[in-house]
Amino acid sequence: MTHHVRIGLLGCGNVGGGLVQLVADEGVRIRERYGVALEIVRVLVRDGERERPGVDRRLITTHALDVLDADCDVIVELIGGVHSAGSFVRRALARGCNVVTANKALLANCGRELFAMAERNDVTIGFEASVCGAVPVVRALRRGLAGDSIESIAGILNGTCNYVLTRMEEGLDFETALLRAQANGFAEADPSLDIDGEDAAQKLRILADLAFDAPVRRAIMMGIRGVTSAEIDDASEKGCVIRLVAEARRVAGGVEMSVAPRLVPKSDPFARAIDEENVVMIRGRASGDVTLSGRGAGPLPTASAVLSDILECGDRSRRFATV
Amino acid sequence: MTHHVRIGLLGCGNVGGGLVQLVADEGVRIRERYGVALEIVRVLVRDGERERPGVDRRLITTHALDVLDADCDVIVELIGGVHSAGSFVRRALARGCNVVTANKALLANCGRELFAMAERNDVTIGFEASVCGAVPVVRALRRGLAGDSIESIAGILNGTCNYVLTRMEEGLDFETALLRAQANGFAEADPSLDIDGEDAAQKLRILADLAFDAPVRRAIMMGIRGVTSAEIDDASEKGCVIRLVAEARRVAGGVEMSVAPRLVPKSDPFARAIDEENVVMIRGRASGDVTLSGRGAGPLPTASAVLSDILECGDRSRRFATV
Repeated sequence: MTHHVRIGLLGCGNVGGGLVQLVADEGVRIRERYGVALEIVRVLVRDGERERPGVDRRLITTHALDVLDADCDVIVELIGGVHSAGSFVRRALARGCNVVTANKALLANCGRELFAMAERNDVTIGFEASVCGAVPVVRALRRGLAGDSIESIAGILNGTCNYVLTRMEEGLDFETALLRAQANGFAEADPSLDIDGEDAAQKLRILADLAFDAPVRRAIMMGIRGVTSAEIDDASEKGCVIRLVAEARRVAGGVEMSVAPRLVPKSDPFARAIDEENVVMIRGRASGDVTLSGRGAGPLPTASAVLSDILECGDRSRRFATV
Repeated sequence: MTHHVRIGLLGCGNVGGGLVQLVADEGVRIRERYGVALEIVRVLVRDGERERPGVDRRLITTHALDVLDADCDVIVELIGGVHSAGSFVRRALARGCNVVTANKALLANCGRELFAMAERNDVTIGFEASVCGAVPVVRALRRGLAGDSIESIAGILNGTCNYVLTRMEEGLDFETALLRAQANGFAEADPSLDIDGEDAAQKLRILADLAFDAPVRRAIMMGIRGVTSAEIDDASEKGCVIRLVAEARRVAGGVEMSVAPRLVPKSDPFARAIDEENVVMIRGRASGDVTLSGRGAGPLPTASAVLSDILECGDRSRRFATV
């Protein structure tokens, strides 16, 4: 018995292109292993004229409704931003489609409303790709550690800042290191979202919502813009490095969150995160410290998280048409 | 809407006792957060006379059928071994109960048959607790990385061997270190299962089945019994430590598995696993290296993995009676 899964793709940039490639590469294995036949049925793009290797031209459209009304099982939202993305996701949920998204800004801004809407329509929103790329931290919190009370979450959640700090340890100044991150495709379109801590704060917010389900009592956000080469050298002399650490912890009556540069001993797991690597340490009352790490960015790692969510939608709802 | 989940517990040793405690500690939170009301309805023990703090005496029985026929939603199998445990699990599946188990020997020996039986009866077998305690590596492979082709899995899967090796680095000889591991409750009842590599091999087999779904072409199993203090010192002079590394990797036509002591540079993530810590590194074609680590043994970490599986049974099948 094969379940046929019709996928509508909103956005075909780095991650969207990665997903198209991954579906082509893994399609046969997934069909044989899980009995799921994946088909991308429509693809929304901004520029319909651009050449996109691997993407069937006939699937491409510049009209979102062509995708949203194409009778899909899953809508994959990869356009980013809050306004258009939000209205597309709402329309998909209202039509009874599952949604998979990598859009942390959308979830940080209106996650609660969207999850409630998904529940009313008996569909799911997969968002593993929105935090830490291929590292399955959303599943770890949602499922693997669901039986435990989480006391704190701390991590290196922004690959760009970590890349910049790692390059500065090698002697580059801040501006040159940032340019190098952008050239390597790690930085967000607007790098200030990375550098000022906003991106890490959004991811932390998503993880904290999963872990604590409690009001935010205090939130601090500092980026790495002020970090100088002299401070990096000074840290090194003390046997430390500087890392942008995001931390959320349970306090009386709620949750306290902070994103800030910290001095971290070189032997610490956070110090050992180099370049665009992400690390998350989850402290549970019964389970102790569980640490997850891996590539937090990049088209294929992120696309692999999207694809896992697509497979899980199918697994959970079992509403896909049988071929 | 609250789902009521009736749990039948087979075995009330370290992990079973941990589960009883965890259900008491987390019950209110889980009811409020997930709408699931957990109730342990019967508990099978070997010695009905022993005092068990926190366990209601009226639930205790020494007859397995009292538990298996108690109209449970989930049977939790924590008695270990293959023969009795296997027949209890088969009976539970045949009755349409979900099963959660921490029994790696059972899964390594007859996992394929039991999973097929579960599928025929439209129930699930949760086994997160069978590998690496609280570290959600089973979920990472089953779900988080389902969209990717796994190339290799390598890890420190046996906490006892790692504890012994770590103590030997501090100057203890093999026998004294092993006695210390037993005194701390890490070692299996029969420590030769740990020391000779069998326990790590069983866990590796479970992970490899999840990751590769391919025949085993070659398997090597060596334990740490022959490792001497002189070898530990010699490794240290080379900037290395000795670790019992379990590795499975895709080769032409199947999978190659090995469990063996290896020389590992001190800067390696495997070297940094100390005492009973477990580490697993999963290499995916698209996702790159994803590493998970945490406490691989102990009553509460293992019980927290069992409880997460209980919650997921309920979430997936939605067959629990509504109160």
